[in-house]
Amino acid sequence: MGRWVIIAPERADRPSAFLRPTPDPEGGICPFCPGNEAMTPPEILSRREDGAWSIRVVPNRYPALRTEIQLSRAGLGLFDSMAGVGAHEVVIETNDHRSTLAEQPVAQIEAVLGVWQERMVDLSRDLRLKALIAFKNHGAPGGATLFHAHSQLIALPFVPEALGAEVTAARRHFEDKERCIWCDIVAQEERDRERIILMSDAAVVLSPWAARSPFELWILPRDHRSSFESATAGELRAVAESLRTALRKIDVALEKPAFNLFLHTMPLREAQNDFYHWHLELKPVLTQQAGFEWATGCYINPTAPEEAASFLRQTEVFP
Amino acid sequence: MGRWVIIAPERADRPSAFLRPTPDPEGGICPFCPGNEAMTPPEILSRREDGAWSIRVVPNRYPALRTEIQLSRAGLGLFDSMAGVGAHEVVIETNDHRSTLAEQPVAQIEAVLGVWQERMVDLSRDLRLKALIAFKNHGAPGGATLFHAHSQLIALPFVPEALGAEVTAARRHFEDKERCIWCDIVAQEERDRERIILMSDAAVVLSPWAARSPFELWILPRDHRSSFESATAGELRAVAESLRTALRKIDVALEKPAFNLFLHTMPLREAQNDFYHWHLELKPVLTQQAGFEWATGCYINPTAPEEAASFLRQTEVFP
Repeated sequence: MGRWVIIAPERADRPSAFLRPTPDPEGGICPFCPGNEAMTPPEILSRREDGAWSIRVVPNRYPALRTEIQLSRAGLGLFDSMAGVGAHEVVIETNDHRSTLAEQPVAQIEAVLGVWQERMVDLSRDLRLKALIAFKNHGAPGGATLFHAHSQLIALPFVPEALGAEVTAARRHFEDKERCIWCDIVAQEERDRERIILMSDAAVVLSPWAARSPFELWILPRDHRSSFESATAGELRAVAESLRTALRKIDVALEKPAFNLFLHTMPLREAQNDFYHWHLELKPVLTQQAGFEWATGCYINPTAPEEAASFLRQTEVFP
Repeated sequence: MGRWVIIAPERADRPSAFLRPTPDPEGGICPFCPGNEAMTPPEILSRREDGAWSIRVVPNRYPALRTEIQLSRAGLGLFDSMAGVGAHEVVIETNDHRSTLAEQPVAQIEAVLGVWQERMVDLSRDLRLKALIAFKNHGAPGGATLFHAHSQLIALPFVPEALGAEVTAARRHFEDKERCIWCDIVAQEERDRERIILMSDAAVVLSPWAARSPFELWILPRDHRSSFESATAGELRAVAESLRTALRKIDVALEKPAFNLFLHTMPLREAQNDFYHWHLELKPVLTQQAGFEWATGCYINPTAPEEAASFLRQTEVFP
């Protein structure tokens, strides 16, 4: 049906593959803490201050995809398969076991985005890869199996459905109007104000029209750029600032909810263009996807985005 | 981006809207139990034996959509809205609070499918509606908020994304080959045997190629028919038998997991055709969707469908 699925039997070996453990902030032994570096596969990259690491990138121990295999494709009657070529890395966002991303200073969040970028630029050199995704699961209902703040990078040998659909819709909008749809959305939302949570000189946070879940937020850099890999340091800083405020607002308003955060950037091997605009999407996990969502791909959202935005605008956070 | 979302503020009034309660089999006061009929909105349909009801259909108390409003459409700059016209009904599958669908006799499961069909035929008369979905959430991780066995019917004023994509892919396959893709899949899977769980004269249960989650199962009637609404009593009985065995196998093999079950049938106002084939999909809830799945629309499945099928073939259930 035109859909790719990653069959990753090794991930079934994870102690928690079929359970829903609640990550324990006190931890037992945390593989992401300083002193336990030997518990992860060898480091790919790190940022260091005074000799100690402050951010660390390691391969995922239970990877969904791997670089060290041949890309092969086969047809089996009606079906198609390809080898699971790709990459699956973990970004350990801080050396402090207990502090969440929202609790980091702006400079540290900016550094995390910088590390995502550096790894993505490196991964993009592998010509077998078609798309890069960065994402973060926070809290057990968000799918996190470890408490220690971390995000993940996955490089895929195909353009995944949701990103492909977004690119197609954006291209169609551009063909009609010769304008970027996200630039258009930012302009319309700034006029309406209803769904805006915060605006800075360089970034905007809004709860989108047709939000699929309560308090879904988008963080958009104002400058149009199709790929995150080419974002400037200033753009990363502006997005880091907005992301930090957004995370702190949901922590206050929704009592530190679980959340999913992800980065959408233009698929690889495509030139910079005027129609795709990289951005972050943040979804507090407050409702559950169930039979209806599986059956339809359609979402029932009990909270109108205007309500969510109004509530978050009024939510005060200390700087 | 071509996506419809249902904004349903009334559903936020549900006591459990933003929580994940574990349904309690002992219950407090169960609104679906005999004697508590006044706790639900007035009955739409029931099946009765010796004066007592055995199946009961009521409107959902917290509906995602409603029939009693005007269908109106509006554009707001870049965005489109339409009034939430539709229907949202609950099918109480038994008068016995403690017994699950898997524990029912075949005749009762057949009667539940018959009630789905009767309600769907009735709902299809409303010309504003475009698609009908029947689904069942079982267990708290599956999204059920009440333990008492029940399923739900939703009638939509648009064709939802996942169903639309399936119809498009099936139509394309038919244009190429002049054959139904599900009939083709059944034929190929019967030759391969690897992903088949059970076959009867009139139905097949298999774990599909590119299953999105562990132990995902499809239940397909052998007879080609695009709409469930026109299925014969014999077809419903055959599917009920296969569904019961499938549910009992996953109860034994996976220790009574939570699951989602749903029905895909041809969108309304389309003639019977040779390319769409109604079917049920069953997904035990064993893994969690998180940031990667939101970001990509792509799934990472740690259990190959061949493994799941082999395990379930060997799982014995008492008749």
